[in-house]
Amino acid sequence: MTNRKGTLIVLSGPSGTGKGTVLKHFFDNYADDAVKLSISATTRLPRDGETDGVNYFFVEKEKFENMVQNDMLLEWASFCGNCYGTPKAFVDENLENGCDVILEIEVQGALKVMEKRPDAAFVFIAPPSMQELKNRIVGRQTETADVIEKRMETAKWEVQNISKYTYAVVNDDADMAAKRLKTIIDAERLKVEKNNFANLNG
Amino acid sequence: MTNRKGTLIVLSGPSGTGKGTVLKHFFDNYADDAVKLSISATTRLPRDGETDGVNYFFVEKEKFENMVQNDMLLEWASFCGNCYGTPKAFVDENLENGCDVILEIEVQGALKVMEKRPDAAFVFIAPPSMQELKNRIVGRQTETADVIEKRMETAKWEVQNISKYTYAVVNDDADMAAKRLKTIIDAERLKVEKNNFANLNG
Repeated sequence: MTNRKGTLIVLSGPSGTGKGTVLKHFFDNYADDAVKLSISATTRLPRDGETDGVNYFFVEKEKFENMVQNDMLLEWASFCGNCYGTPKAFVDENLENGCDVILEIEVQGALKVMEKRPDAAFVFIAPPSMQELKNRIVGRQTETADVIEKRMETAKWEVQNISKYTYAVVNDDADMAAKRLKTIIDAERLKVEKNNFANLNG
Repeated sequence: MTNRKGTLIVLSGPSGTGKGTVLKHFFDNYADDAVKLSISATTRLPRDGETDGVNYFFVEKEKFENMVQNDMLLEWASFCGNCYGTPKAFVDENLENGCDVILEIEVQGALKVMEKRPDAAFVFIAPPSMQELKNRIVGRQTETADVIEKRMETAKWEVQNISKYTYAVVNDDADMAAKRLKTIIDAERLKVEKNNFANLNG
């Protein structure tokens, strides 16, 4: 089997559900060289230790607007006065090279990607329960009661969209969840449409 | 997560591709109690050591015809004067109980199941190459040149249908192939539609 096509894996879920930890376990323990994490473009300034092209593609506001106008972003959103988006070029180049690309984005962004890339694998990282999600957000002790309430409202809306996703991974244990993500990626690689069987039909 | 729905896994591929060996490795090394192998109904007589309800459901010709007329078979075919078919009841009862059911059938039968059960996972067990398939059939030393030629003609037609399948597993090594089958089943279990997330939307 040669000329494998990569899979776009869109990973999202409520804030506090542990997406980042799952991804860390995944890249530390289960990923091979053929899986890449998508790098977002942003208009915000680099923080200490952040490198352009590694953590983010840091771009000027004008450049970002240009990317939006020229349809160079798969999805984008603004947050706290800064813009964040997913450059298509990085995603498509990797897919064409046979690499899978993981996109970690908000549910709202994922819904937009569903329209543009229905062939992607959409993975919802779910909390074991809404109470457990609340416990985790409260446990951080960084948020006011108001913010917690607002987060839970958003989480409820996000969870209502779970049926639009292909797969759901319950994050009861981050390492187990990372392993399940690995299973999904391995199965996607076995899809007929991702492989070239010209050697059998020659 | 409770009330999981099972997945129907339809497994086929050319004769000589090693489906039986892959399934043996799978059930010996990778299957859990929630995966069942579908049992066919047949009009042929039991051979020594075969048990009704284990190897086959042995039925009279009249009973078989009745099952066909009452749409009780997912697919059926006749071979060497005997009829073979897949009873729907066994499949559906297991799926409803949250078990996955593997159906090992000919490509022709699988194409019929695609129409009736498009939500099943269709797995094509492929040879590494057509030459390797021929080597395996010749290696058995049980077939005449005529039969080998006919088998290869059928195999060519079967392989042309690979694009209709969901997944393809190349059987270069039976244990590796069994592991890939396990990956597919595990990923299907993570599909949102197979799980009940009512506890999150309550």
